[in-house]
Amino acid sequence: MARIENAIKALVDAFVEHSNGDGKLSKDELMNMMKKEIQNPEIKAKLCSADFDKAMERMDKDRDGEINFREFMKCVCCMACRCYHKKTGMCQEDAGCR
Amino acid sequence: MARIENAIKALVDAFVEHSNGDGKLSKDELMNMMKKEIQNPEIKAKLCSADFDKAMERMDKDRDGEINFREFMKCVCCMACRCYHKKTGMCQEDAGCR
Repeated sequence: MARIENAIKALVDAFVEHSNGDGKLSKDELMNMMKKEIQNPEIKAKLCSADFDKAMERMDKDRDGEINFREFMKCVCCMACRCYHKKTGMCQEDAGCR
Repeated sequence: MARIENAIKALVDAFVEHSNGDGKLSKDELMNMMKKEIQNPEIKAKLCSADFDKAMERMDKDRDGEINFREFMKCVCCMACRCYHKKTGMCQEDAGCR
């Protein structure tokens, strides 16, 4: 099965492709990635809301205007917690996601 | 494509199955999950080393002897950073993974 391994590889590959190899996602690259790589509206609601700027700001922990891999993975964690909560009712949705 | 969405779903599904629906992985469940869901020795090196107890201790942030979903996702982040670093040379491997 190797589901966890494959999931990790897919996340790394998606980030590398969309960041154009420079290790950072600009706002446009991030928006483009979310459009392509997430289809479920509930999963992307948090990111692709009308206030995309705010979402970007929240992800951009080091405030350099771009999203690095670690910031991207923090965001993936938040989306996963949301998804897990929806499926099981466990794991508080937003704790630690800011 | 929806790679990010599918990766998130796979991580949630793997955790739900291996945790037996109670929201926590015991040490045995964690070991069993890592054996089944990760094949690449480099990815699991960090977890499935001889000192599995230490790895478990490091993951178990709230010190209750089990791994909840948020703790599991933190560990996934670390494995992903390791994988990303290996692929690109970017993202310091262990920063923030303790």
